[in-house]
Amino acid sequence: MARVAGVSRATVSRVINGIRNVAPEIQEAVNRAIATTGYVPNRAARSLVTRRTGAIALVVSGAGDYSGDEPFESRVFADPFFGRVAGGVVGFLRPRGVHPVLMLAETPEARNEVIAYLRQGSADGALIVSTHGEDPLPRLLVDAGLPAVLWARPARPTPISYVDLAHRAGAALAADRLVERGCRRVATISGPFDVPASQDRLSGFQEAMAGHGHPYVPGVEGDFRQNSGEAGMHRLIKEHPDIDGVFVANDLMAQGAVLALRDHGRRVPEDVAVIGFDDSTAAACRPPLTTVRQPMEDMAAEMARLLLAHIEDPSLPVTSRIFQPALVVRQSA
Amino acid sequence: MARVAGVSRATVSRVINGIRNVAPEIQEAVNRAIATTGYVPNRAARSLVTRRTGAIALVVSGAGDYSGDEPFESRVFADPFFGRVAGGVVGFLRPRGVHPVLMLAETPEARNEVIAYLRQGSADGALIVSTHGEDPLPRLLVDAGLPAVLWARPARPTPISYVDLAHRAGAALAADRLVERGCRRVATISGPFDVPASQDRLSGFQEAMAGHGHPYVPGVEGDFRQNSGEAGMHRLIKEHPDIDGVFVANDLMAQGAVLALRDHGRRVPEDVAVIGFDDSTAAACRPPLTTVRQPMEDMAAEMARLLLAHIEDPSLPVTSRIFQPALVVRQSA
Repeated sequence: MARVAGVSRATVSRVINGIRNVAPEIQEAVNRAIATTGYVPNRAARSLVTRRTGAIALVVSGAGDYSGDEPFESRVFADPFFGRVAGGVVGFLRPRGVHPVLMLAETPEARNEVIAYLRQGSADGALIVSTHGEDPLPRLLVDAGLPAVLWARPARPTPISYVDLAHRAGAALAADRLVERGCRRVATISGPFDVPASQDRLSGFQEAMAGHGHPYVPGVEGDFRQNSGEAGMHRLIKEHPDIDGVFVANDLMAQGAVLALRDHGRRVPEDVAVIGFDDSTAAACRPPLTTVRQPMEDMAAEMARLLLAHIEDPSLPVTSRIFQPALVVRQSA
Repeated sequence: MARVAGVSRATVSRVINGIRNVAPEIQEAVNRAIATTGYVPNRAARSLVTRRTGAIALVVSGAGDYSGDEPFESRVFADPFFGRVAGGVVGFLRPRGVHPVLMLAETPEARNEVIAYLRQGSADGALIVSTHGEDPLPRLLVDAGLPAVLWARPARPTPISYVDLAHRAGAALAADRLVERGCRRVATISGPFDVPASQDRLSGFQEAMAGHGHPYVPGVEGDFRQNSGEAGMHRLIKEHPDIDGVFVANDLMAQGAVLALRDHGRRVPEDVAVIGFDDSTAAACRPPLTTVRQPMEDMAAEMARLLLAHIEDPSLPVTSRIFQPALVVRQSA
């Protein structure tokens, strides 16, 4: 392995274990060598030296207020968002011989089980994807001194590392595009207010529209699911029949909004321009959606890289990695 | 725990470990008690007695012929099918204190890693979801004497347990529905021929149509993705412009078929009736799709239950569990 990469064994070990102070070119050379040689680190031997298991927990976590008739696991895993995060995590970890253990934590009991699992040393650390802003799990992990990295900034200040997107900048890209197209009566459908990403997308959009001379933007709140985008668009059209552009806080809701507009006989984009967010289901919509792209797989890989670094060096300070969004122009705006 | 469930400790242990000869009522009582007490089996203690890890591998496996530009993990996990299987597996395993470790196996190196992982005792057995009929992993697991259960019957005869759907019966439900609606010129878009489920859905449909007096059903082959359903429908309409009904082997392709029909100015279901398969994305389509429901979460839970039984009792004979499909009537047929 070291020979193929043309570096020392110690360097290979540093890259595999996600230690940070290795030059990017060298990291790349090692990763290429891992890929070409199909090298698998000896887990047992490594575990003896490092006292590590080669496993990390991938936890889907919530605040426990799910009262719907569908079980939590069915709702979570049926969302294409989860699959893309899991794909990014697995893609990064497997050349390093580390495997994610899938866990759920939406009740106090389930959260205790995650903490116990890590304390017993069954996994070396946790990646947390929260479905709810008020999730208590990040704080529990910090208090227990366990290595963990979050997907997205926690709603309450918590000394824990995370990866996130520059949501405000992404929303501003949408505002610029709508104004540039000549839209003059613009509205928005936001995500749930208790999720920081929703707040950021909403306030970023409002601020950018104000900068373009539109100090008031009518808005309705959705829950990120398609039905809520459809219902939200019906309400907006009823209250503001002259709307000619709408920014919707994710692609699934934007898809619902397009269906509602069709029911009202409005053409997209000729009568009403629509911009989504995420670039998840946008390409498959009719018309294909213009959207703000979130590089989910890259963010997930970085989350895994950060966790390995924290496991390797517990003294590493809390950090964050903020990714930049990009506007993907298709047909809807 | 045993007290809450009103049964002996031995019985609780049998239910948790997935042993089969416990009456369904008692299994239910224990599962209820697990849920209400938030009971977590002591993994370390259990591991000493049983020499087990409390981990199983959830492997997404392929034949290694993926030459697309998208990495295997991105393609696999972005499919809503995978999420639903993962949800069913996690939902069954977590009250039993067992956690799935997510692994991929699409190359010879990755398959070796799965085998090594199980041999080292890092997991007690494997659940295999294959994306390709010619996947060599099931045979490797059998030869290594490792406990494993498959999602769906293997393409080549292999002595390994699996769960599956009665695909032929499901396709016959679709044929009956189309004929009952009065469709007289019916076609089909099938899945890839190297997947046994595709063959079963196609031959089951042809056989049922023959029974209704339609010995010839025009058909095109798709790859289970939306684009291939759209392209397939364009071809069918071109070659057989008088089609009035179509059976499509999954919902994603059916969604594509509906888009193609709209491009040709055909109304669904008035001009052409469309029936999908799976009941995955069917409800969110416009019009909502009539489809053949596959109870994925239940099948995934049963796959996990079977694996625990094989781990508990290595002498257990190879078995299969075939689930019955159901026709879900919505608007498209």
